[in-house]
Amino acid sequence: MKQGIFISFEGIDGSGKSTQMKMAAEYLSSLGYRVLTTREPGGTELAERIRKVLLDAKMEDKITAKAELLLYLASRHQHSAEIIEPFLRSGGVVLTDRFADSSTAYQGVGRGLGIELVEGLNELVIPRWPDLTILIDIPAEAAQARNISKAPDRLENEGIEFQEAIRKGYLELSKRHPDRIVVIESKDDIEETQIKVREAIARFLAV
Amino acid sequence: MKQGIFISFEGIDGSGKSTQMKMAAEYLSSLGYRVLTTREPGGTELAERIRKVLLDAKMEDKITAKAELLLYLASRHQHSAEIIEPFLRSGGVVLTDRFADSSTAYQGVGRGLGIELVEGLNELVIPRWPDLTILIDIPAEAAQARNISKAPDRLENEGIEFQEAIRKGYLELSKRHPDRIVVIESKDDIEETQIKVREAIARFLAV
Repeated sequence: MKQGIFISFEGIDGSGKSTQMKMAAEYLSSLGYRVLTTREPGGTELAERIRKVLLDAKMEDKITAKAELLLYLASRHQHSAEIIEPFLRSGGVVLTDRFADSSTAYQGVGRGLGIELVEGLNELVIPRWPDLTILIDIPAEAAQARNISKAPDRLENEGIEFQEAIRKGYLELSKRHPDRIVVIESKDDIEETQIKVREAIARFLAV
Repeated sequence: MKQGIFISFEGIDGSGKSTQMKMAAEYLSSLGYRVLTTREPGGTELAERIRKVLLDAKMEDKITAKAELLLYLASRHQHSAEIIEPFLRSGGVVLTDRFADSSTAYQGVGRGLGIELVEGLNELVIPRWPDLTILIDIPAEAAQARNISKAPDRLENEGIEFQEAIRKGYLELSKRHPDRIVVIESKDDIEETQIKVREAIARFLAV
């Protein structure tokens, strides 16, 4: 039997998923659950080293799409083994900001490696899929407008067409996995969006 | 049609495979071939960064076997794309010190991830298998005796049982892929071993 509850938050940068996740964590805590919030790459020593390589803008042209994917997978496995799985085994609730679907959307769709290849590799590598995935959906243009003050990292440099392709990739994934992935529109009103997130979580907990 | 000729050299540390590869390169050059010798991780910027993480003895307990495997695969793909494939496409001969079978032997057998999993991942990741693999075989104890003066890195710290398990893994691989992998006994006399290597290459070129 599965132990704990594992929920991932997905979406393009600027969708507000991190904020929504934190608010969802407060909600679950208020219901009496023991909650761990984490984010890829999750703060493990290995993952932080990999993150430095991946986000270093100077290496932009040099990483092949497959190597990039494999680095994310390595980081994900370490994050799962060190942080996520132990907490789930103890019966807790883990909320993570990004997980396997990020690779499928970014490398599978955005980099063109294909959804099947990336999902196949995720399947071989991750110990467990999320029980529920909250996809915070927003048009790339609206997300960029929110994000405008931040200095862009390597992936964010890719431009609005890339971000919109990622967004479409996420929506396609939600159609492939309708039992797991719930799409929630990112409204400008954070509280309004959070109401929908809490409804989705409540529906999942009631099953 | 396949372009170029791709030959990998495999074996445990201390087998003498690097020396044998260099001598084989001289042989092939003397026959008029354009030869590139390389070794994993191959000197790409990305691969060198990954190598630092992998060989850092301080991280010994921290890397999961799957994360380790995925880092090697990322490094291998980058090495293939940047160094190996362009030279093969130009019609040259590439000799590499370690390639896909190293992962199968070290992570598949040594770390217990299983031969099928690692070969499946290699298959998804590498652009091309070697046309010929020269496995330089030596008992772990004899290899260690040769290696005794060198400071051990993270993998070499694993001890003689681990090295012997890797050796057996390699021999099993040679039985699974008899058309590709040629086993050559590592004699103390380097020249004597090289004669066998050259015979194996000559047989391959004659096909």
